[in-house]
Order: sequence, then C-alpha cells, then structure tokens
Amino acid sequence: MSLQLGVIGTGAIGQDHIRRCSQTLQGCRVVAVTDIDPQQAARVLAGLTLEAEVYPDGHALIQAPEVQALLVTSWGPSHEEFVLAAIAAGKPVFCEKPLAVTAAGCRRIVEAEIAHGRRLVQVGFMRPYDAGYQALKAVLDSGRIGEPLMLHCAHRNPRVGENYKTDMAITDTLIHELDVLRWLLADDYVSVQVLFPRKTGKAHSQLRDPQIVLLETARGTRIDVEIFVNCQYGYDIQCEVVGESGIARLPEPPQVQLRSAASLSSAILMDWKERFIAAYDVELQAFVDGVRAGRVGGPSAWDGLAAAVAADACIEAQQSGAIVPISLPQRPALYA
Amino acid sequence: MSLQLGVIGTGAIGQDHIRRCSQTLQGCRVVAVTDIDPQQAARVLAGLTLEAEVYPDGHALIQAPEVQALLVTSWGPSHEEFVLAAIAAGKPVFCEKPLAVTAAGCRRIVEAEIAHGRRLVQVGFMRPYDAGYQALKAVLDSGRIGEPLMLHCAHRNPRVGENYKTDMAITDTLIHELDVLRWLLADDYVSVQVLFPRKTGKAHSQLRDPQIVLLETARGTRIDVEIFVNCQYGYDIQCEVVGESGIARLPEPPQVQLRSAASLSSAILMDWKERFIAAYDVELQAFVDGVRAGRVGGPSAWDGLAAAVAADACIEAQQSGAIVPISLPQRPALYA
Amino acid sequence: MSLQLGVIGTGAIGQDHIRRCSQTLQGCRVVAVTDIDPQQAARVLAGLTLEAEVYPDGHALIQAPEVQALLVTSWGPSHEEFVLAAIAAGKPVFCEKPLAVTAAGCRRIVEAEIAHGRRLVQVGFMRPYDAGYQALKAVLDSGRIGEPLMLHCAHRNPRVGENYKTDMAITDTLIHELDVLRWLLADDYVSVQVLFPRKTGKAHSQLRDPQIVLLETARGTRIDVEIFVNCQYGYDIQCEVVGESGIARLPEPPQVQLRSAASLSSAILMDWKERFIAAYDVELQAFVDGVRAGRVGGPSAWDGLAAAVAADACIEAQQSGAIVPISLPQRPALYA
Amino acid sequence: MSLQLGVIGTGAIGQDHIRRCSQTLQGCRVVAVTDIDPQQAARVLAGLTLEAEVYPDGHALIQAPEVQALLVTSWGPSHEEFVLAAIAAGKPVFCEKPLAVTAAGCRRIVEAEIAHGRRLVQVGFMRPYDAGYQALKAVLDSGRIGEPLMLHCAHRNPRVGENYKTDMAITDTLIHELDVLRWLLADDYVSVQVLFPRKTGKAHSQLRDPQIVLLETARGTRIDVEIFVNCQYGYDIQCEVVGESGIARLPEPPQVQLRSAASLSSAILMDWKERFIAAYDVELQAFVDGVRAGRVGGPSAWDGLAAAVAADACIEAQQSGAIVPISLPQRPALYA
Repeated sequence: MSLQLGVIGTGAIGQDHIRRCSQTLQGCRVVAVTDIDPQQAARVLAGLTLEAEVYPDGHALIQAPEVQALLVTSWGPSHEEFVLAAIAAGKPVFCEKPLAVTAAGCRRIVEAEIAHGRRLVQVGFMRPYDAGYQALKAVLDSGRIGEPLMLHCAHRNPRVGENYKTDMAITDTLIHELDVLRWLLADDYVSVQVLFPRKTGKAHSQLRDPQIVLLETARGTRIDVEIFVNCQYGYDIQCEVVGESGIARLPEPPQVQLRSAASLSSAILMDWKERFIAAYDVELQAFVDGVRAGRVGGPSAWDGLAAAVAADACIEAQQSGAIVPISLPQRPALYA
Repeated sequence: MSLQLGVIGTGAIGQDHIRRCSQTLQGCRVVAVTDIDPQQAARVLAGLTLEAEVYPDGHALIQAPEVQALLVTSWGPSHEEFVLAAIAAGKPVFCEKPLAVTAAGCRRIVEAEIAHGRRLVQVGFMRPYDAGYQALKAVLDSGRIGEPLMLHCAHRNPRVGENYKTDMAITDTLIHELDVLRWLLADDYVSVQVLFPRKTGKAHSQLRDPQIVLLETARGTRIDVEIFVNCQYGYDIQCEVVGESGIARLPEPPQVQLRSAASLSSAILMDWKERFIAAYDVELQAFVDGVRAGRVGGPSAWDGLAAAVAADACIEAQQSGAIVPISLPQRPALYA
Repeated sequence: MSLQLGVIGTGAIGQDHIRRCSQTLQGCRVVAVTDIDPQQAARVLAGLTLEAEVYPDGHALIQAPEVQALLVTSWGPSHEEFVLAAIAAGKPVFCEKPLAVTAAGCRRIVEAEIAHGRRLVQVGFMRPYDAGYQALKAVLDSGRIGEPLMLHCAHRNPRVGENYKTDMAITDTLIHELDVLRWLLADDYVSVQVLFPRKTGKAHSQLRDPQIVLLETARGTRIDVEIFVNCQYGYDIQCEVVGESGIARLPEPPQVQLRSAASLSSAILMDWKERFIAAYDVELQAFVDGVRAGRVGGPSAWDGLAAAVAADACIEAQQSGAIVPISLPQRPALYA
Repeated sequence: MSLQLGVIGTGAIGQDHIRRCSQTLQGCRVVAVTDIDPQQAARVLAGLTLEAEVYPDGHALIQAPEVQALLVTSWGPSHEEFVLAAIAAGKPVFCEKPLAVTAAGCRRIVEAEIAHGRRLVQVGFMRPYDAGYQALKAVLDSGRIGEPLMLHCAHRNPRVGENYKTDMAITDTLIHELDVLRWLLADDYVSVQVLFPRKTGKAHSQLRDPQIVLLETARGTRIDVEIFVNCQYGYDIQCEVVGESGIARLPEPPQVQLRSAASLSSAILMDWKERFIAAYDVELQAFVDGVRAGRVGGPSAWDGLAAAVAADACIEAQQSGAIVPISLPQRPALYA
C-alpha cells in the first residue's frame, strides 16, 4: 500500500513536493493538504488534477486518521509547532529546513523525539542525497586520500535580491554547507570566524558580499567556505577535501564540451534549482521508503539542531569579527 | 489508474524491467508475466515479492484482458512473433532490441503497424533518453555549431568473452550508434565501409578487434565509429560532432576529481550497466506515460528497421572490405 | 666558436630564422644572406641591426669560405638546387619544407647524400621538437598503452584564403602529420584513402573542406586525420593514440581556466604561429648543436622523401577516391 | 658585445645559473667566478669546460674591471654584503632570494640603491616570469573578471626532510607567493593570520604541516594560501583569483591525457625544479637584456624588502595565532 501523506503548506516548495510525490516518487500519495490560505491549497490540487482532502489547519490535518506521515513545508516560523504536533501524534514527519527558526526550538523537538523514544523526524537537507556528494564521501571513506585535513568550499549564486541581508548568507546559503560538511566528515564544528573581503560592486548597499567562513572541527579539520551571492557568472558549488595523501573534489555537473569561437568551454548552471533537482527526489523517496519500512533516517532533528547552533555562532562571528566557539551538547543515544 | 503491463521473457533484462516498473517508475504495474521456463517467471515474481499472473506462453499473455500493454524481453528470435501478435491485439508494445533478427522481420512489423493505422511499437533503444545525448542534440539543434559535417565516435568495452564474434561488433555493439546517431542527426545512412586496424593482442583468436566503421549520411555527413571491445581500460562511449563553426562533445559521466600519487584523475566506468542506467528508467517511463496519454513515441518500428538495414550493410562491408550502399525504402507517412 | 650560418631566402620564414639565430639561439650567428631580391636581404639585416655579407645568389653564398652551414628558406621550387649544392660543397644544410617539390627531387637529394657518405641535411619539420609530441611519444615508447592500433588526429585552421586549393590540404597542411606521425610510430605508410564529407558553407567555392585522410601503416596501425581549414573556432591540432591497453592524447596548450558568463572555459589559439613557436627554436638549436658536435640529426632527407611520396599518394587518393598504395624503396643504411 | 658576468657562489643554484648563462641565454658570458671554496669554483668551470677567472673572494670579483654585472648566488647570510658592494661599485646585480636575511638588511640595500640614484638590483623571484602567472595577470589586467576580491592559493610539495622547520613554510615556501601575489595584484599586504589544521601523519614530529596563511591587502582583497609540504601526491601550485564577475585560475602544466586502467588521468609533477624551469631562463635573460639596454627591471630591492617584511609578520602570526599587521614604509619614488 502507498504511504498516505499530508502536506502542510502549499507554497512553492510545498507544491513542488506534492507534484514530486504524485508524479515522480513510488509508494506514496498525497491524501491531505492544508495552507494558511485554503483556496491556495485547493488551487494547487486542481492544478495537479489531484484528489485530496483540504484541511482547515495543520493540526486538523495531523490528526486526520488517513494521514500516515507529514510533510511540513509551511512558513519557517511555524515548522516547530507542526513538527512537535506530529511527534505528539506519533506520525513520521519530513520537515523542510529550517527545522525551527531558533536553536532552542530545535532543542525542544529533539527532546520531544527522545521522549517519544524513536526517530520520527527527517529534516529537508538534500545535499547528502546528491550523487556528487555521495561519490565524494565514498572516496573519503575509502581511505584513498587519508584523513581529511582541510576543506576548501564555495557557494556562489549569480545574484540576489534587495531582500537578501548579510546574515542570510548564513541562514539561507551556508546552512547547506553546515549540514552537508558535518555529514561528509562525520565530525562536529568547534569554532567559526568570518572574514569580509573587499565588497563586490555588484552587491546592493546593505549587503556585505562576498564572505569567507572559517570553521574548525573537533578533529581539527579546517574548512573555508567562500560565500559569494553576486558572483554573476553562475550557480557554482565547490567542495575540495585535502587529505593526508591526496585531494578529492566534488564533480562538476556533466555538460557538453564545446569548441567554439576561440574557446573550449562547458556550461555553468545559472539556476540553483537545476543543480540539486535529482537530490530532492532521492531525499523524499528515502523518507517514503524508510517510513514504509518502519524507520526514519537521513538528516535528523539532531542534525537540524547542530546546523542551527552552528548558524547562530556564524552570525555572532559575522558581527564580532572574533573566533566564536560552537558547542553542541553531548549527542543523545537516539542519534548515535 | 496504473497501466497494467504484461512481460514476455524474464531473463536478465526482463527481470530488470519488471523491477523498474514495480519499484522505480510511476503509473504502471506488472500484472502478468511469462517465460519459456514458467518456474523461472514464478521465481522472479517471488524474488521481487510481486503478485502477478504467470501465463503459459506469450500469446496467452497478450490476449489476457487485464494486460493493457506489453514488454517483450524474450529471446531475440521470438521478438517478431510477439510484436506482431501485440499489434494484432491492438496493444502497445515495448520491444527490447532487436525488433526482429532480420530486416525482413522488421519490415513485416512496420507493415503490420501501418495496416493497424497508428503506432503501437516502441523499440528499446535507450540512448536517445540519455541526458548526455539529449544535451548534445540540444546544442546541435540550437545551431550553435552550424550544420554537422563529421562525427567522431567510439564504443569501447574493457573486454568480451569467447562467444563474442566479429559480426557482433555490429549487431550487439554498433547497433546503439546506428540508432542514436540517426536520431541525433535526423538523417539516414547511405553507405558504409569497415576498416580493420592491426588486431589487439588482447582479443581472442576468432575476433577481429578493433574495427572502424565509416558511415555516410544522405546529407553527406561522415561518421567514423571506433569499435574496440577489448580496450581493457573501461567502458567508454565517445561522440564528437564537428559542425561548420564549432565542435560539441558528449559529456563524460560526472566523477570525483582526484589528485593522488602524481596523477590528476577521474574514474572511468568499467561496467556498461552503470553508463546508461538512468536512460533505461526514462525510456520506459516515456513508454508508460505515452500509452496512458494515448500515444506511442520514441524509437519506432521504422527506426528498428533502419537500424537493421544499416546493420546488414555493415556486416556485408565487414566481409567484403568494400563501400556498401545502405538503402531504406521511402519513409511511410506513419513515421513522418 | 659560434657556428657561422648562411641564409638563402629572406622572406617571412627566412627573416624569422635569422632573428631566431641572432637573438634566441646559442652558438650560432648569421654571417651571410642572399635573396632573389638583394635589397630585401639588406633591409632584413638592417631591420635586425645585424652585420652580415649579402651575396648575389645562393651558389655564391654556399661557396663562401666563412659560411659553415646553410639555412635554405627560399621559394620551395629552389630548395632542391640549393640543398644539392650544399651537399656538393660538403656543408650541413637545414632546409625548410618541402625538401623538394617532387618526390623525384627528394630522391636526388637522398642519393647525393648517400654518395657523400654521411648526413648533411635536416628538413624543417618542427613538430617532433614540440614538447607535447615528445611527451606523447614518451608515453607510447614506455609501453604504458601497449602497441598502437589507431590514431585519431585533426588539423584545423580557423580559415584560409582564396589561394588555398584542395590539394594544399595535403601539401601545406597534412604534410606536418605525414612527418610527425611516422616519427611518432616509427612506422611507414602503406596506403591512403581520402573521404570528402559534406562541404562546409564557410569554404570558398573551389575548395573541398573538410577532408578525412585514412592512412594505414606497415604494422597495420590505422590513422584518420581530419583536415578542416575553415573550422572558424581556432587553430587546433589533435592527436590521440589508441593502444592495446590505453589511450594517450596530445596535451592541449596550457591556458588560464575561466569561470565567466555561465561558462567554464579556456582559450583556444587562433594563430598557428603561436602553437609551435617553441618547437622552431628547439629544432634549429638542435641543428646548430648537432653541426657543432659533428653530426646532423632530426628529420632527414629520407624523412623528406617519405613525406613527399606519401603526399603524392594522398593527392592521387583525393582525385581518384580509391585506396592508393604508398610504397617507399628499401631504407638505405645511411638512414637506419 | 656580450655582457660579462661575475658569479659569487658556485653551489647548486650558482652552477645552474652559470650553465644557463653559458649554454642557454643570449648576450652574456661568465668571465669570473668565486666561491668560499675556490677549488669548488674551479671544478664547476672545468665541468662546464668554461674559461673564466677564479677570484679569491666576492669583493675582489666585484672590483674586477672585466666584470660588468654580478650574480649573487652565495650563502643567504652573505647576500646583503655582496649586493651592497655591487651597488657601491655601481654594477648591476642579480641576487638570488633572499635579498637579505632580515628586513633591516633589505632596508639597507634599498637605501643604498636610493642613494645611488637608480636601480641596480634585481631579486631572483622567478614566478612573475612564468608564462602561467603572466597569462593569469593578463586576464586580471584585461578587466574580464572585474576587480579581484579573493585569491585561493596552494603551495604543495610531496615531502620535506627533517631539517625543514615550521617557520621555513614561510621563509622557503610561502616567500614565492608573498612575492608573486603582490605583483599579480599590484597591491600591498596589510595583515596576516595563520591557521594550523589537524597535522598530517606524514610530517616529522617537529613540523606543523599543513598551514593556512590568510593575508589581507590594502585594497581589501583576501588571500588564503594553503601550505602543505608533505602532501605526498605532487608538487602542485594553485592560484585562483575570484573577481567581481568571474574567476581565473593558473594553468595546470600541459600533460598527456591518458585513459588507462579505469582512469582518465594526467601526470602531476613531483619535482619542483621542473615546474618553473622555463621561468628561470626568462628571468635571467630579462636581467641580461635589461643591463645591456641600460636599465634594471623585474623584482626590485623594494620587492625584496616587502617580501621580507611580510615574511616576518607571517612568522609572528604563526607563533602568536593573532592577526598581525604588516606595515611597509611609504614607497620611495625610485620604485614607483
């Protein structure tokens, strides 16, 4: 039998996941939706010619007997409330990032899940499901380059709008690296420092761009992440792991190689949505398959908390210019 | 409603497609299977914990009312018979290559389909569904490199067994290029010549390896395909289109870039199954989606015939050393 | 003591060699020059602020006692005459290609040199002195890719003038491959066939462009060379050797890698003069060093003859469309 | 007339330069040499079959009337003394790095040169003469990537001996970047910070390896240089300039591309001497040509001082872990 999903929030990412669950994934179907604007929820269903119940609010949907698992894709500040309700109902829940808008909120979810006794929550960090990062981790775990000593990373966007503020470089951009690099290294951050290079002339007046974030892990690995959200030339994600005996680099997306007009070239993506599109499918299929098999895996509430704690420290480091410690409590047994 | 599929032949490729239709694709399910060895068919179902009817033979399965469309994955020489039966029953049929083991057989299928009045047959050529070939075709069709003048291609396998004979370089290996290059160029072959370079010491005594196949198209484009099935180093598919103002090359599969032991390297696949694995999913999903939407697209019976006619000429060219003409009848309106 | 050189012919390549010998190389100086237009010779000396004797003609210059070795850079049809005179005078001679405009002329030079008893002639084929070809030959000779079975080559120019005729694709373009591939493989050609793909719309009306030349060697290695002299995009020399266990490819010239405007790119040269500029220095320094050490090496009169014989066959193959045999006499002991 | 050179110090680099001036460069010859061990000097001349006067010490050689310009290739601590003597004698001097072993020593040379009134000193930093760095600077200066905002660099060696101490990562390794990056950016350093990642297990017990040096320039450009002298895999110099609208990367040395044993690879150099070998020729030829033309260019005494001042700050930053300011006096008019 297909897993029956309820979706809370039918904005852009919600719609995308509803379409995904209906048209791409196996073993699931959307049976219930809700949105702060119920007409919007109905329009989304109509647009996809999908039959599902429209509930007046998230709590009603969570309680609905036909809903076996939840997708929380509502406005960020509401995530915590709905995830806690899902845990209270004992229903598995896939929550888009952020798990909660504060580390304290993440901690409450972790505590609720521990009280429940087993994992119910998967956080929507999709990069660990990207084939490139998985290949990179396979090289790392094979021992072919020895222990990792340094990571050189970059997260670049062609441009951002006026609403993008300096701290969003952490909460909206770096947050992906904060998650995926912990997973890649199986290690935790212990400190962070942020450098501000000369500002690009292409950034709006309120935004400091680019930035360089320097992280240190518990095992002493040093990570530098260049964040440059007005780089003009493309959406470009780089990750290079320098190990004791070799270096491994995240694959570039495959592209036709061209010889044309005095140039040997291949295209660079301009749109971030194309870069990890396959990873979204894989991540959500993994959630569905896991729930059907009686277990929830992938990025956990603990990982969500770790990212939130690190992000808070990064923002403090942006403001103070100092080296800021990052301290996570002892890892609970549930997340071992 | 899911499309209800019947599968004729549960050998390696049949099993693979049954698994694909059951676990990966959307909108279909396998409801009936048959195999020359009925116990084999039952074992395959059991192995996949799949419930479906096991029929005593292909014809019974084709007639079964619950079967809405067919997958023919039986022994090659039986393809023609089952495809003709499917057409007679008016049921869409996806037939693994070869469509028939002779050009005459393909012609009978084409004629049956024309008599039926609309397309029912999709041939299992998966390369046009590969993201790399699609990107290459997009560049070509964009006009960025002008009209195509030459194609330089290679089809290399690490090694083959004793059972692989010289003509299988055409029927089992080149057949993929014969299909995909016609599609890429939207052009037909008019002649072929085969060269035999110095034989590799790695090939068994009965096999001439490598070979170079030189094709000419109706528009005068020249194609050279190196076939080298004991190249040792990897499974490597190359395709370079030289146009009037530039050159476009099929993407290499994405790989981690390594700096290690005095070498900057990336892996080359050794197993052909990994190279086009995603294309198999896309091709079969396209069949399912098409049938559900009331049309059959993709590689047609006409394409299957064109490949068979070209392959026959290639084998004649292998044997004679001469330039052999390739002539296809006028393209029927059904395949315009 | 510096080697005292006399230069016959002060056109473009002559001037270039005079400058090279005066300003770049070690161990030589130009002491005598001549040109069909003596004022041109004087102007070249003046332009380089160089003091050297201007002789009324090549024969006078060859006889001049202070001239120890010759550079023949005059009009092609005069090469044979001056090289024969140099041999008669017992003076080492570096002759720009072609050694002679006919194979018969080359044969007369070979015979004269054999009669003289030791090598005096170096032909101006510079590619064997290119660092890239040398690296490629080193890989080949190391046995790392096994015996060579096939070569896939390309010789592309952005465009050519109206004066460039179809047979110049052989005499002016392919001639470099005819020389360097023999050297690379240490093998001789036995047959040639020429294919004419669909003509590019960028070529003038009298020129068939592109062309594909198919060569076979005595050991059975098959070579395909694409010649495309209106490829628009760049001056691009490609050479790929397919061996029994691996493939080696001529290095691309080093270039800055750029990420810009949705493209990852590196420049392709547009001007052929930049591509082998270093090789010209190395080739002529080798001649100078050799003569000073009492021996002449590098491309020999025999190599010049071999290239001429192959070129004649290529032109016949252009005209006949047939497979044309290439037969070279037994290699004389002098050139073993 | 050839420039007559005197060479002080006939150790490894001295011998190399003597050979270079005698056998490779144009327009110079070595007429005088000296070494702390005069027999060593004589042996070097004999080994190169070179006739030159052996002087008892550097001062005698500097005073010798036939010596028109000096190469100082003696033990580092003696450089200052000989360069000052050359300036006092009014003779141009090419001094291998370091110009002096202390910033104070460099300052004394700068002052002496200013007092003399025009440039006489070229410091032996060869990277600005490397074709790769020159191509990178050309891209930067062309404006194609906009203003430089960040540089990501690496300087890696396969391994170092027991005698290599932590501060030599600055004085022997980073010193090249300290010079070439100032030249590349036409900018000065204002601060430095050093990070120590987890130590590689391949480094000897007294050495902290790798290190990351973070430099800031007057215009705000941020530079990170990874120094990793036991990276095992190769001698690898990386330099990537991130500009406002694009990124330019130092070319990799050209190498044969291999497909072999499941790998697409190209060689990485293991020996640093091969990497910049051509640059040594170019740098010294530039010195010779400059002196003959009446001017000294290239890396100046001021550049030597700037590198020394920056290196001192780097070492302080290694020890303190703090951000250390780098302050250079006002640039004198002589070096504008």
